[in-house]
Amino acid sequence: MTIYECDQTPALAYNSREFLSAYISGYVDGEGCFTVSISPRATLLVGWEVRPGFSVSQNGDRAEVLHAIQAYFGCGSIRPDRSDKTLKWETRRLEDILGRVLPHFERYPLLSGKRYDFDRFASICRAMAEGAHLRHDGLIRIVELASEMNPSGRRRYASEAVLATLNVKVKG
Amino acid sequence: MTIYECDQTPALAYNSREFLSAYISGYVDGEGCFTVSISPRATLLVGWEVRPGFSVSQNGDRAEVLHAIQAYFGCGSIRPDRSDKTLKWETRRLEDILGRVLPHFERYPLLSGKRYDFDRFASICRAMAEGAHLRHDGLIRIVELASEMNPSGRRRYASEAVLATLNVKVKG
Repeated sequence: MTIYECDQTPALAYNSREFLSAYISGYVDGEGCFTVSISPRATLLVGWEVRPGFSVSQNGDRAEVLHAIQAYFGCGSIRPDRSDKTLKWETRRLEDILGRVLPHFERYPLLSGKRYDFDRFASICRAMAEGAHLRHDGLIRIVELASEMNPSGRRRYASEAVLATLNVKVKG
Repeated sequence: MTIYECDQTPALAYNSREFLSAYISGYVDGEGCFTVSISPRATLLVGWEVRPGFSVSQNGDRAEVLHAIQAYFGCGSIRPDRSDKTLKWETRRLEDILGRVLPHFERYPLLSGKRYDFDRFASICRAMAEGAHLRHDGLIRIVELASEMNPSGRRRYASEAVLATLNVKVKG
């Protein structure tokens, strides 16, 4: 008798899609990264371009997981990272993020504090689906949400600098 | 209607033990480490002590997953790593490794190349359960298996140095 006979859920086949779904959430909680980059773009009325991205990195000698993730989500591309020693799978297409990435992590949630990054990432992507990033007020809200993500990461353009160009008075 | 209605497996509740099991295998495939340290020990007849260990590291601000892993396996301890910025959960007790860790990863397998490290780790731990590490021939086999693990990692004592003390002629 195994302890699993007492569980409410049936035993999970290791090669089932449900196993892979939960496995991927665990893997991403360690190695994945949700980012929103905000860069100057003179051709846009608001002056800034918002680009969401979801990526997973891995040592090049262990690329199997990236290929499994790419097949699972059915989108994104794999390429060497700046350092030659790692590979990165990344998707930046809003339609794929909305239709494939967000539903996955809402169904199979992250368990670490990274879920707070995901929540903000999801809010920004859904706001973009409604065109918020092309409007002054919407962009301000997106910049504020993005500033709360990945506190240990680096930003090329500080939120304060972006907000200053939008004539927003920055606290402090 | 969701795409999951077509799956052979039923939907997995995100708070079920089965979700956590698969999630942990994914997390460990990214962040976990199976090690076997071999150190000189004059009080042992064979002259060397073999110590297996399984650990998972995490930034200190995201310690939730380590506590979930500790509760899941029901063993090991959490402590700051050498660098103050990370926490590490680790178990080194052979009985817990044999009874809790190995069965988990045989039921919910790693998908990356790290599974080869796990296979060798499991072979060494099971050999130790039979006392192989206390015998000359068994120790030689363990050192050989350990030398094939974590090729990118560092060893305090090179396999060749250990084998030389055991009067084994090293190839090359």
